[in-house]
Amino acid sequence: MHLDTITFSLPLLATATETADSSLILAAVLLSIVVIYLASKVGGELLSRFGLPPVLGELVGGVVVGISVLHLLVFPEGGAESSSSLIMTFLQTTAGLTPDAADAVFTAQSEVISVLSELGVIILLFEIGLESNIKDLIAVGTQAAVVAVVGVVVPFTAGTVGLMTLFGIPAIPAIFAGAALTATSIGITSKVLSELGRLNSKEGQIILGAAVIDDVLGIIVLAVVASLAKEGSVDVTKVIYLIISASSFLLGAIFLGNIFSKTFVAIASSLKTRGGLVIPAFIFAFVMAYFAAAIQLEAILGSFAAGLVLDETDERVELQKQVIPIADMLVPIFFVTVGAKTDLGVLNPAIPSNREGLVMAIFLLVVAIAGKLVTGFSVFGQPQINRLAIGVGMIPRGEVGLVFLGIGSSIGILSKPLEAAIIMMVILTTFLAPPLLRFVFPEPETAATATDQLILDDSSGKSLVMESPDSQDTK
Amino acid sequence: MHLDTITFSLPLLATATETADSSLILAAVLLSIVVIYLASKVGGELLSRFGLPPVLGELVGGVVVGISVLHLLVFPEGGAESSSSLIMTFLQTTAGLTPDAADAVFTAQSEVISVLSELGVIILLFEIGLESNIKDLIAVGTQAAVVAVVGVVVPFTAGTVGLMTLFGIPAIPAIFAGAALTATSIGITSKVLSELGRLNSKEGQIILGAAVIDDVLGIIVLAVVASLAKEGSVDVTKVIYLIISASSFLLGAIFLGNIFSKTFVAIASSLKTRGGLVIPAFIFAFVMAYFAAAIQLEAILGSFAAGLVLDETDERVELQKQVIPIADMLVPIFFVTVGAKTDLGVLNPAIPSNREGLVMAIFLLVVAIAGKLVTGFSVFGQPQINRLAIGVGMIPRGEVGLVFLGIGSSIGILSKPLEAAIIMMVILTTFLAPPLLRFVFPEPETAATATDQLILDDSSGKSLVMESPDSQDTK
Repeated sequence: MHLDTITFSLPLLATATETADSSLILAAVLLSIVVIYLASKVGGELLSRFGLPPVLGELVGGVVVGISVLHLLVFPEGGAESSSSLIMTFLQTTAGLTPDAADAVFTAQSEVISVLSELGVIILLFEIGLESNIKDLIAVGTQAAVVAVVGVVVPFTAGTVGLMTLFGIPAIPAIFAGAALTATSIGITSKVLSELGRLNSKEGQIILGAAVIDDVLGIIVLAVVASLAKEGSVDVTKVIYLIISASSFLLGAIFLGNIFSKTFVAIASSLKTRGGLVIPAFIFAFVMAYFAAAIQLEAILGSFAAGLVLDETDERVELQKQVIPIADMLVPIFFVTVGAKTDLGVLNPAIPSNREGLVMAIFLLVVAIAGKLVTGFSVFGQPQINRLAIGVGMIPRGEVGLVFLGIGSSIGILSKPLEAAIIMMVILTTFLAPPLLRFVFPEPETAATATDQLILDDSSGKSLVMESPDSQDTK
Repeated sequence: MHLDTITFSLPLLATATETADSSLILAAVLLSIVVIYLASKVGGELLSRFGLPPVLGELVGGVVVGISVLHLLVFPEGGAESSSSLIMTFLQTTAGLTPDAADAVFTAQSEVISVLSELGVIILLFEIGLESNIKDLIAVGTQAAVVAVVGVVVPFTAGTVGLMTLFGIPAIPAIFAGAALTATSIGITSKVLSELGRLNSKEGQIILGAAVIDDVLGIIVLAVVASLAKEGSVDVTKVIYLIISASSFLLGAIFLGNIFSKTFVAIASSLKTRGGLVIPAFIFAFVMAYFAAAIQLEAILGSFAAGLVLDETDERVELQKQVIPIADMLVPIFFVTVGAKTDLGVLNPAIPSNREGLVMAIFLLVVAIAGKLVTGFSVFGQPQINRLAIGVGMIPRGEVGLVFLGIGSSIGILSKPLEAAIIMMVILTTFLAPPLLRFVFPEPETAATATDQLILDDSSGKSLVMESPDSQDTK
């Protein structure tokens, strides 16, 4: 009797439910990761057989397992409920998940996968930073800045003015849609360049530098238009704060980083236990990512800066080697998740607002592509450069475009057709850019750098061996 | 006016809060990982200078940053609130976290870190499986089974009878406390053996095999005593189900695994994109971990079985190399989290129930140590074997002991002093075992295996180079 009373008292039941949940959350996360890995490998391998960048296959694989088709990997932000997730249904039939607990497990699993995906893009940009050379980036700094500014001003102006004059959209939503046209997805662009072995070409460095500057500009543009939409006026203090904090962060990271990189090598070489190189490197990368996020920039800018700084150290080659398997494990989670969250429902012509949005979408798509293509022709003093490739490299909007859209929706200023048009523009630029980039960079470079080889040859398993002499040199 | 109405409608506000949360959750996770890495490296390096196993340093580092001392890394399961987490306070002052949102961010961050920690121990056991040889394990199978059974029966009987006769504890709580004495922490034991380079010694293989069998026995014992405590009788069907499912899982995994391992090599060698080896390996490991969890065993048994199977393939050496940095990144999260969740408050003599529990704790500790030490003397047909080392290897209760305790608390059958006594026993066995193991395995083996060298030499960064000829041989 006494025992029964205790067993059924509320707080104890709650504890029991929590215990049950934690193993079910783990089971749900394990299944989600398996689905993500299958989607990334099937998609990536299939598309690479057709000569297309594997990352496009990961995005498409994500679309197939996500909200648009199979409903294996869905997220509550997209309005999905636990009952629409096939993984939850599977857990209910195989692992004894009760319908009552399903919502809590679904929310927790989605949070964990979202964070893993964000860690994935943080590691990706860290790796891209490690592969890039800070001096090369500074050398193309002015060209990159011009490309970034042109790539923000042209699509923004053309998009806003066009929507207002051609479609009669009111000023504020038109400005917001114009702002969504300015973004460039660093993640997608840098990954494709790395896959093509072009990250360290002059074009690659300009695109990467411009994408970084574009990210900072995009954050400032977003702050401006969001405060304009919310309060009807621009919060000048915030804009000045963002400009100052972004500039000081990037410059400060590089200057302080150069001092810190010596300390880093000293610390890493004094450590005797396992992970003596990778753990200090990740402490640095994650602290920088945190700082970037805390001053309202993006976390990936911090890990990119950390990678750039550590690329200057003697541990570079060994660190790159160790980061490769970690990136292989976490980066696909990011791209598959981006694909899974993409709702192709907006392309369905049966829904009226989609039909209304279609003409606007075509207009936005033209502006989105043309507005970035012109950036290539703004590059000066480089007669030999592949201008088309630079323009194409700036095209994908990816997750950055979706962030703009998410904030626009949350403020509630976008009409349904305009929202659908922006989503279509984001999807098409994201999925068109990788094959276009492949097309404008037709042949692999004959004199690929050691780093590029390391990446390209990775699947053969021989790359680590090939790199051995280098790594001994750096000791 | 229209705009205001929309801005303040409830669902839209909720969306805005969610957007804000997701970047704050990421910031909280990044800070937690930085704290974990600092704790693991400072603790691990300090203790390794004193000749102690680094993993003990990670546990101690976890205690320092956790609920017992600094309150940087606390978890809601331990009854902590978001206001007691220093990371949450830090986010409130640096990243604009509002007190209202703090609870949600705290819960999400704790869930993510808990899952990362569980992924860490899954990867650890996968790596241990890769380092172990299935034939060696089967060769010592009978001895391991005897060690496991003796190590369950002796502490269980001595503990239960002692608590009933010496301390007058009623039968059911005494049986539960006796059951908590049977566990062995595979994670801690295998990690220490690996660090000492003794995993592939005969003693190491017996300990590992016995710890695996012990884990299965522990799950069965737990099911028996939990149903005894809840319903007053033993659910025989469930016990039979567990015995059959556990045996079929382990045997089935190995037999099916042998067939699958050929398919695995064929798939892995046909993949041309990045991660072509590590992703298929993790798909296999996570599917096995899921199956193990779904049939109410532990996820780590699944990944251990997957590692054992893949150790039989030609890709073994290359896979081990690639898993090392991933394990270096994730495994410390597990050990630091175990330390952080350990509440040393039970050792505080100012609390009455702790004083009452102290004598019981001493009794339980003696039974816990003596009951496992005798297992070494149950090994037959091995005159040369280090019996003391086997006994000591079975001592740490670690996270498995805490699982028993958690279920006992949730059923509500343990008195405060008895609960405190069990926690003290778990803490002391966990923290005493690594230095004791170091002591009973005094000198490193002269003829360490290649795998052990790979691990031991990892910090020098030269191991990958040293291994190059092997990896070429396997191609």
